[in-house]
Amino acid sequence: MQFSSKIQQCHLSPMRKFHPYALAAEKRGVKIHHLNIGQPDIPTPPAFFDAMRHYRSDVLSYAPSPGVPEYVAAVQRYYQRIGAPLAEEDILATTGGSEALQMVMCCLLDEGDEILIPEPFYPNYDTFVHVAGGNIRPIHSSPEEGYRYAQRQRIEPLIHERTRAILITNPGNPTGTVLTPEEMTVIADIAKKHGLFLVADEVYREFVYGGEPLSTFLTLPGLEENLIVVDSVSKRFSACGARVGALISRNRDFLAQAMKLCQGRLCSATLDQLGAAALYGVDPSYFDATRDEYRRRRNACVEGLHRIPGVVCEEPKGAFYLMAKLPVDDADKFQTWLLEEFEDRGETLMFAPGEGFYGTPGKGKDEIRIAYVLNEGDIRRSMELLGLAIARYQKEEMA
Amino acid sequence: MQFSSKIQQCHLSPMRKFHPYALAAEKRGVKIHHLNIGQPDIPTPPAFFDAMRHYRSDVLSYAPSPGVPEYVAAVQRYYQRIGAPLAEEDILATTGGSEALQMVMCCLLDEGDEILIPEPFYPNYDTFVHVAGGNIRPIHSSPEEGYRYAQRQRIEPLIHERTRAILITNPGNPTGTVLTPEEMTVIADIAKKHGLFLVADEVYREFVYGGEPLSTFLTLPGLEENLIVVDSVSKRFSACGARVGALISRNRDFLAQAMKLCQGRLCSATLDQLGAAALYGVDPSYFDATRDEYRRRRNACVEGLHRIPGVVCEEPKGAFYLMAKLPVDDADKFQTWLLEEFEDRGETLMFAPGEGFYGTPGKGKDEIRIAYVLNEGDIRRSMELLGLAIARYQKEEMA
Repeated sequence: MQFSSKIQQCHLSPMRKFHPYALAAEKRGVKIHHLNIGQPDIPTPPAFFDAMRHYRSDVLSYAPSPGVPEYVAAVQRYYQRIGAPLAEEDILATTGGSEALQMVMCCLLDEGDEILIPEPFYPNYDTFVHVAGGNIRPIHSSPEEGYRYAQRQRIEPLIHERTRAILITNPGNPTGTVLTPEEMTVIADIAKKHGLFLVADEVYREFVYGGEPLSTFLTLPGLEENLIVVDSVSKRFSACGARVGALISRNRDFLAQAMKLCQGRLCSATLDQLGAAALYGVDPSYFDATRDEYRRRRNACVEGLHRIPGVVCEEPKGAFYLMAKLPVDDADKFQTWLLEEFEDRGETLMFAPGEGFYGTPGKGKDEIRIAYVLNEGDIRRSMELLGLAIARYQKEEMA
Repeated sequence: MQFSSKIQQCHLSPMRKFHPYALAAEKRGVKIHHLNIGQPDIPTPPAFFDAMRHYRSDVLSYAPSPGVPEYVAAVQRYYQRIGAPLAEEDILATTGGSEALQMVMCCLLDEGDEILIPEPFYPNYDTFVHVAGGNIRPIHSSPEEGYRYAQRQRIEPLIHERTRAILITNPGNPTGTVLTPEEMTVIADIAKKHGLFLVADEVYREFVYGGEPLSTFLTLPGLEENLIVVDSVSKRFSACGARVGALISRNRDFLAQAMKLCQGRLCSATLDQLGAAALYGVDPSYFDATRDEYRRRRNACVEGLHRIPGVVCEEPKGAFYLMAKLPVDDADKFQTWLLEEFEDRGETLMFAPGEGFYGTPGKGKDEIRIAYVLNEGDIRRSMELLGLAIARYQKEEMA
């Protein structure tokens, strides 16, 4: 009995692999500052819970395969407000952005097909692409350049006959990089010129800190056939446990294919979709407050990092992640050391080592991803801990 | 721009393709008796809604990837009660039985691999298998034999070097066939002898009408390495919209592979898992009442069918479906005619034409699947309508 070659190419999550070490540290009484997982601490708007409570049928029935009408209509209104009018038929409800991504890969990729993705990238892309039999061709970026990648001369040479799509996360996870309007146009032009699908994962849309208006590839002209947008309520409304997302496209042939998968799995959870519909009715001031909070955290994090000698980190413009290059040999080893040997006043920290975010072997070994999902005070203390730890680790390495 | 060959091999659901005709008929004021979709009308136990209402955190967080501990523990207790003790680690929470099936196919099948499935089978298996790049090798059964298939001499000749697994739905959808203990042993022996995974989809376990004890392949000896059980709360507790299921196996290597997929999609919906955990606490009398209700419906359905000249239908022993062979040329055409041209006192009916449940081209053309999910009175009236319709249809065909 054997397992499929595709599942054997997949990996466990690099964000979760230090879990046993963390448990052991906690058992010793060490407090861990968790900067490793993108689980926001912002309260979910109560509208979600209220909508679920108000479900009045005796039978918890299947939802329609393409989505609960209230939820689809709410998504439609949201996009109308940000200047991207959609038809109801352009929207399919999905079980989180994760399922939307799985569906995209399954519809676009055959064995040996390639998808271009800027690296470092969200590690679960790797699972979704491998499961479909495809491969990721990374578009390189570096900490020294602030992880910017949207240049024609960098991307076009990577395209060949088996390239099917380009996947852009904007704002970026893990880098926090936000595309400028000019960069978005470059990407869109490349997709159109080479006949590629452009998959835009825009689940962090609201998390931009420079006063930019909310942006989406959906407002760019001439992309109707190419563009597929992946969306989710998880981060937007701090509702990660709802597992409600959307697959959006004006390419009806694409959605007709995706609909086969929607019908195959019958539907997404009925009550969560009703809750998600209600979330889209929250007052826009919710986003302002959340954005201000994350901006303060981002600033605290970047200030702290800039105080540590040898750390390379350009200020990220969006999402709630950043990547940084550390003056250590191996971030994986350093993380293990942090959990097994380091503590300061009974505290240590966790981040996600960078290597798991790269498709190119050997890259990212001295980089880390930080999710700044803790309050400002804890972020400041975490950066202090990081500075102390690096100094001590370097000394031990020298000894 | 092209779509993957695997998605092009998938189909839309045969249960849902008559939806536009149904809408048109309803617009003309015709009442439709829906026997086409397995959406039970039995109330969901209120414990589900209560558990969701009692969620007390402000933040709707991700659940752990392998499942909410309360839910996993509830599944474990349930299997303990039916004589199949499991470790917590043998259970992964999934987004319905659907996701569990997708995970299984992805872990077991590579391009060109085969899985044996008795036909007629649940059409979505076809989607899950194709998406993984595999193919279904049907094990034949027929209406005249009551759709029984579990014979060594029928199955073994179908096995060859690319056969990876055998998938059994027990009790069966669409046939309602229930395996005898002897038949289960035959299947288990074949799986062991040929080194195949045995995937047991047992989501209809409670729906057996002959006084049989609840059965599961998990109680058979020596299947630890081979057996994968797919389960769900959808039918058991009439909670289809919850999308909570489970992937169960004592083969830890298999679950380690599946865990990669669990982590890839992060988690199943948090509140629905809490609701599902509460469902497992309902009083066993719930099942007795439900079983009695479905037994009455099954009896009403079979009695009605046996009154119609030319219909072939052995009494099914479980689930809430049955397949029947009708004295018509083409059930697809007949269904269209029922929606477009037939009515009796303003009423007509819908079933699922049989062809979509077969992997062998041309089979099932004169068969239908009935989901007896309506109350007894409506079932009796539906069978009366079916009899009238067949007589009128045959007359029109002759004319």
